Amino acid sequence: MEYKLLKKQADTIRFLSADMVQKANSGHPGAPMGLADIVTVLSYHLKHNPVNPKWLNRDRLVFSGGHASALVYSFLHLSGYDIGIEDLKNFRQLGSKTPGHPEYGEVAGVEVTTGPLGQGVANAVGFAAAAKYASNILNTDGVKVIDHKVYCLCGDGDLEEGISYEACSFAGHLGLDNLVLIYDSNNITIEGSASLAFSEDIKSRFEAQGWEVSKIDGHNFDEINEVLSKAKEQTKPYLIIADTIIAKGACELEGSHNAHGAPLGSEVIKNAKIKAGFDENSFFFVPDDVKEEFVKAKIDGERAEKEWKQKPLTAEQKEILDKLLNPNFDSVKWPLFEAGSGVATRDSNGKIINEIAKALLGFLGGSADLAPSNKSELNGMGSFPKGRNIHFGIREHAMAAICNAISLYGLFLPYSATFFIFSDYLKPSARLAALMRLKTFFIWTHDSIGVGEDGPTHQPIEQLTQFRAQPNFYVWRPADANENVEAWKKALRLNAPSAFVLSRQKLTVLDGKKDFGSAAQGGYLLKKAQNPKITLISSGSEVELCVKAACRLKDEGIDANVVSVPCFDLFTEQSKEYIQTVIDKNTKVLAVEASSGDVWWRYADDIICMKSFGSSAPSEKLFEKFGFSVENVVKRAKELLASAHGV
Amino acid sequence: MEYKLLKKQADTIRFLSADMVQKANSGHPGAPMGLADIVTVLSYHLKHNPVNPKWLNRDRLVFSGGHASALVYSFLHLSGYDIGIEDLKNFRQLGSKTPGHPEYGEVAGVEVTTGPLGQGVANAVGFAAAAKYASNILNTDGVKVIDHKVYCLCGDGDLEEGISYEACSFAGHLGLDNLVLIYDSNNITIEGSASLAFSEDIKSRFEAQGWEVSKIDGHNFDEINEVLSKAKEQTKPYLIIADTIIAKGACELEGSHNAHGAPLGSEVIKNAKIKAGFDENSFFFVPDDVKEEFVKAKIDGERAEKEWKQKPLTAEQKEILDKLLNPNFDSVKWPLFEAGSGVATRDSNGKIINEIAKALLGFLGGSADLAPSNKSELNGMGSFPKGRNIHFGIREHAMAAICNAISLYGLFLPYSATFFIFSDYLKPSARLAALMRLKTFFIWTHDSIGVGEDGPTHQPIEQLTQFRAQPNFYVWRPADANENVEAWKKALRLNAPSAFVLSRQKLTVLDGKKDFGSAAQGGYLLKKAQNPKITLISSGSEVELCVKAACRLKDEGIDANVVSVPCFDLFTEQSKEYIQTVIDKNTKVLAVEASSGDVWWRYADDIICMKSFGSSAPSEKLFEKFGFSVENVVKRAKELLASAHGV
Repeated sequence: MEYKLLKKQADTIRFLSADMVQKANSGHPGAPMGLADIVTVLSYHLKHNPVNPKWLNRDRLVFSGGHASALVYSFLHLSGYDIGIEDLKNFRQLGSKTPGHPEYGEVAGVEVTTGPLGQGVANAVGFAAAAKYASNILNTDGVKVIDHKVYCLCGDGDLEEGISYEACSFAGHLGLDNLVLIYDSNNITIEGSASLAFSEDIKSRFEAQGWEVSKIDGHNFDEINEVLSKAKEQTKPYLIIADTIIAKGACELEGSHNAHGAPLGSEVIKNAKIKAGFDENSFFFVPDDVKEEFVKAKIDGERAEKEWKQKPLTAEQKEILDKLLNPNFDSVKWPLFEAGSGVATRDSNGKIINEIAKALLGFLGGSADLAPSNKSELNGMGSFPKGRNIHFGIREHAMAAICNAISLYGLFLPYSATFFIFSDYLKPSARLAALMRLKTFFIWTHDSIGVGEDGPTHQPIEQLTQFRAQPNFYVWRPADANENVEAWKKALRLNAPSAFVLSRQKLTVLDGKKDFGSAAQGGYLLKKAQNPKITLISSGSEVELCVKAACRLKDEGIDANVVSVPCFDLFTEQSKEYIQTVIDKNTKVLAVEASSGDVWWRYADDIICMKSFGSSAPSEKLFEKFGFSVENVVKRAKELLASAHGV
Repeated sequence: MEYKLLKKQADTIRFLSADMVQKANSGHPGAPMGLADIVTVLSYHLKHNPVNPKWLNRDRLVFSGGHASALVYSFLHLSGYDIGIEDLKNFRQLGSKTPGHPEYGEVAGVEVTTGPLGQGVANAVGFAAAAKYASNILNTDGVKVIDHKVYCLCGDGDLEEGISYEACSFAGHLGLDNLVLIYDSNNITIEGSASLAFSEDIKSRFEAQGWEVSKIDGHNFDEINEVLSKAKEQTKPYLIIADTIIAKGACELEGSHNAHGAPLGSEVIKNAKIKAGFDENSFFFVPDDVKEEFVKAKIDGERAEKEWKQKPLTAEQKEILDKLLNPNFDSVKWPLFEAGSGVATRDSNGKIINEIAKALLGFLGGSADLAPSNKSELNGMGSFPKGRNIHFGIREHAMAAICNAISLYGLFLPYSATFFIFSDYLKPSARLAALMRLKTFFIWTHDSIGVGEDGPTHQPIEQLTQFRAQPNFYVWRPADANENVEAWKKALRLNAPSAFVLSRQKLTVLDGKKDFGSAAQGGYLLKKAQNPKITLISSGSEVELCVKAACRLKDEGIDANVVSVPCFDLFTEQSKEYIQTVIDKNTKVLAVEASSGDVWWRYADDIICMKSFGSSAPSEKLFEKFGFSVENVVKRAKELLASAHGV
C-alpha cells in the first residue's frame, strides 16, 4: 500500500462528505472524516461487486452509525456503485438516492437501513449468523459456496445501546468467526466527551462475551491493514477498537462534538482542503488517481463473482441453493382444523410453521427463550446454526434485528417469537422491518387478558393499536386455527413483515363458511343475517364471542351480522365497495376487542374494548370483568340500537 | 446465625411458595425455592420497617424476576407487612393483594412492579442513583439522612436483556457503592439450560463495567452472610453471583426447567416437606420459631426508624427535606411567550423546565445524549449525582426505567429526554410508568416529519397513536409555546406519567384567546366561527395550519371552527357535554395531524394524516408532499362538505 495515495483516497472521502453536508446544510461530517482512513484500507479487503450489488457471496458491510451516510454514499460512489456525483450533490433532498440515513432499497450497495443506534450491530450479527447457517448447509469440503465476511462499523452510541450487548453476546455464544466489528472510538458524543456517561473497559467487555479484540490507531494505515488481515484468521467474532479523531482533517474542529451533527462551515472546509493539498475552490472533487484506485473494486468484484460462479457445485448443492433462492409457497401442506374443536391459536400456529418448514428449506427461526410457550419449535430440525431452531436467549430486541438481517441475506424466511407483551422490547427493530418491507415474521402469543394469572405486566392492551398504526406492517389476530392458516398463506406472499397475534387459550374452530369475502382480504362477513340491524365486528378470541352474541340477539328478535377482521391493516387497504359489502352501512356497528381498540372507531359506532390495564386472575374471570361476555355484548348492542333510534 | 433455624426459615418460604402456586394452579415455584436461602440470610441484613413501608431511609429491595412473586409475598408476610396468610391463599385471584407479578400499590412492601425482565435491575440502579443524589444534598458530615442500601435479586433473564447492560454500565460509571445486585445463577431458562443461548463470563462483564464481583454458593448460609457483610464496605456497585439450584428442596424437580413456570404437583411438594422434616399434610404452615424470628424485622425496623427520626437535622437539612417532600407547584414562575413570535416547542419546553427546576428542588433529569437537541439541560445546575443534570448516555431504555425508580423513591420529579422516534427504545419502561401511575415526565422532541432531512428512520409516524393507546399515560403535543406551559401546569398535578411531544421547527405562538375550554381539558375550541359548517381538529404544528386554512375557507365563504387538542387522552376523559361544545355536532369534522392519525376517527369524518413512513428532505418540502398545506386542507375540507351533501 502506498501511503501517499491512501491519504489522498481518504481525504477525497473526507471532502466529498464535508461538501455534501455543507451543500445540504444538514448532516453529520464528523464520523465520515474520522472513519475515512479505515474505510480506505477496508476497501482493499472487501470482497464485493459494485456491478452486481446482490452477489450472494459478497462481504456484507454495515454502517451501524447511519448518520455517517455521507461516508456511505462517498464510498459507494467511488467504488463504482450506481450513484453519481450528482446524487452526492443532491444529499438529503426530496426524492434523492442519498437520504439522510442510508436506506435499504434507495441505493444499491446499502445492505440495510441504519440510523437508530445499535441496530446495525445486531444486523451485522444477523448477517453473520445467516452466512454461518448458509455455509453449514451449502458448503462441502471441496466447494465453499459461502465464505464471505461481515464487516460492521459502529460508534460509541451503538455500543451504549442495550441491543448491541444482546447481539454481541449472541454472536460470542455462537462463535461467529465471520464477523468483524470495527469500533470508531472517537470518544465524542452529542453532549460532549463520551466519558461523561460511558467508562466501560470495552476490550474486557467483549472478551467476556467471547470475542477476540484488538486495539489500533484508526488513522495508522499499517495498523488498520494488519488487523484487517488478521481478521481473516479468527476463530471468534472479532472486535477492532480503533482510536480515532472525530472530523479528522477538519483543522480547528478536529476532536470536537460540534463536528458531529452540523456542517463544518465553508471556512473550515477550505482550510482543511488547503492543508491536505487539495484545491480549496473545488467541490465534490475526485482526483484521477483516486478514482482509478477505488474503481478497481469493479474489476476485482466482477472477477471474484465470475470465479465464484465457476465453482463446481454438486447436484445437491445446486438443489439446496435453488430451493433457498426460489421458495415454492404452493408446496406447503397446510393443516386443516376440525370445526367445533378447541384449539389455541398458538397451537395451530405451531402446527402451521412446522408444515411451512417442511416445505420451505429457508424457513427458520426461534424464540426469545419461550419456545415451549410460543409453540415455535421446528420439530426435529436441530439447533442453529447447524439446524433451524435459533435459541435467541432472552434478547427480544436483538432477536428482531437479527431476523431483519437474516431476511435481507437473500436466502431465508426468518421468524421470531415471544409473548405479545414483549413486542414492546423489539419495537425499534419491527419498525425497521416495516420501513424496509422485509419478509420477516413475528410470532406473538399470549395475545390479551386471556393470559390470565400473570397479570397486567403480561397482558397486552395497546400493542394491537400500536402495531396497526405502523405503516407496511401486517398484524394478524386470527379468530381460530383455520383463519391462522389463511393468515400465513397470505403473509408469505406479502412484501412486508407480518405479525401473528395468538391466543394462549383454546378457541373454538369456526365452521369455515363465510358469507362474503375472505381472511386474505383482512376481514370478511362471517355471518350474514336476513334483516340485519347491527354488525358485530371483531378479531381473534372475540369473534367467537360475537357469534354467540349474534345467536342470542337473534333469539331476542334482533338480526346481527358478524364480521371477522383478522388483519385490520389489510382490511383498510380493500376497496370501498368491498368494505361496504362486509360492513352493511344500514346497520349500527359494534366493535368488540380485548385491546385498547381505538382503531375500530374508523368503522364502529360503539366499542367494547379495554379502557385500562388488565388484572391478575383466571382468564374467564377477566373476560367477564372487562365486559367480554355474551350478556354484555347483547346489552351494549341493544343500547346502541336504542340510541340510534334516539338520534 | 443458627444453621438449623435458618434452614427451617428458608424451607418455610419454600413451602409457602410451593403451596401458593399449587393452590392457584398457576405460577412459578422454581425461583422462590432456589432463592429462599439467600432471602432468609438477607432478612438479617435488610434495614426496613414493615410497620411503615414508606420510611424514607429504608433499604430498597427489588425482585427483578417478578415471576418469583410467591417468594415476595411469603417474605413480606413473614416479615410482618400487611399481608396475611389468607392473602397468600388467594394468590393470583381476582382482586387479591397477591397478583401474579408483584405490583406496586397493590401490596405494601413491593417497591416496584416487576415482571418484564431486566426492568427491576434498572429500577434498582435508579433507586441507588436517587439515594446517591439524596445523600449528596441531604447529608452532612455529622448527620446522614440517607445511608441505606439498594438490594436487587435477578436471574439469567434479567442479565440477558439489553436494559440490564445499559443500567449496569450507568451504575458502574457513577460508582454507585450503595447498590447490591444478587444474581440467582441457576443456569435454567424456559427452553432449558441457560447455556443454550448464554455463555458470558459474567464476572468479567461486570468488572468491565466498573463493578466489584463475588461468587458464592447460594445455598451456603455462611457464604451468603459473608458477602452481604462485605457489601456494606464497597466503593463500587457490587455483584454477588450466587450459584443456585432452581426449585431447591423439591426433590425430583430440583434443577429442572420444568419447575420454572408450573406447579410442582402435590406429590412432589409432599415428598419435599417430608424430606425437610415438615408435616406433609400441613399447607401454608409457618412454624412458631420461624414466625418469631422473621417478625423481629418489625421490632428492629421500628427501632431503626425511631433512631433515624431522632437524628439532629440542621435547619437547612430540614428545609431541603421539606421542599423535596412537599413540592409547591404554585411557586413555579411560568414563562409567557409573545403571540406572533416563532418558537419551537422544544425551545419553549427548555425554558419551562428550567423555571420548574428553579422552583422545585426535586425536579431533575436528563437526556440519552441529546440534551443540546432536546433542550433538556437545567442551566447551571451541575451534573448528577452532585447536580441535577443526568447524563444517561445513549441508553434510552435504562433511562426510562431509572426515572421510574427515581420517581418511586419518594423525593423527586424526574424527567427523561430523547427524540420522539426513540421513545420506541423505552416503550417497556414507559408502560410500567403508566401501570404504576408514576409522576415521571418524558420529553420527546423532533415530533414528526418536521424532523426533515434525517429522514424516515428519525420521523415518528405511529408513535403518537401508540402512546395514546396506552392507559394511564398522557401524551401532550402542544400547538405552541404557551400551550406547552399549560401542558406542564396540568401534567405536574396528574398522578400519572406525561409525555411532551415537541417540535424541532418554530411554531407561531397563537394569540392565546380560546373561544371555549382550555388545554388543561385536553382539547378546546380555539376559533369559533359564526355559522360553522366544518370543524378542523388537530394537535401540535398542524393547529397553526388549521387556523390558516380556516381563514382561507372563510375567504371562500365557508365558516370553520378550529379545535386544538394538545392532549387527546385527557380530552377523551372529559364529559360528553364538554366534548360536544368543543366539537359542534352540526359540523363535519376534518382531523389534521402529521402522524398515523388513527385515533381521530373517534371524532372525525375524514382525516389528513400520514399513511406511510416519511422521507428525507427539508421539512417544508415534506409537509407539502404529505398534504399538510393550506391548499390541501382547504381542498379536503371542501370535498368533505361536498360528500356530506351527497349522503
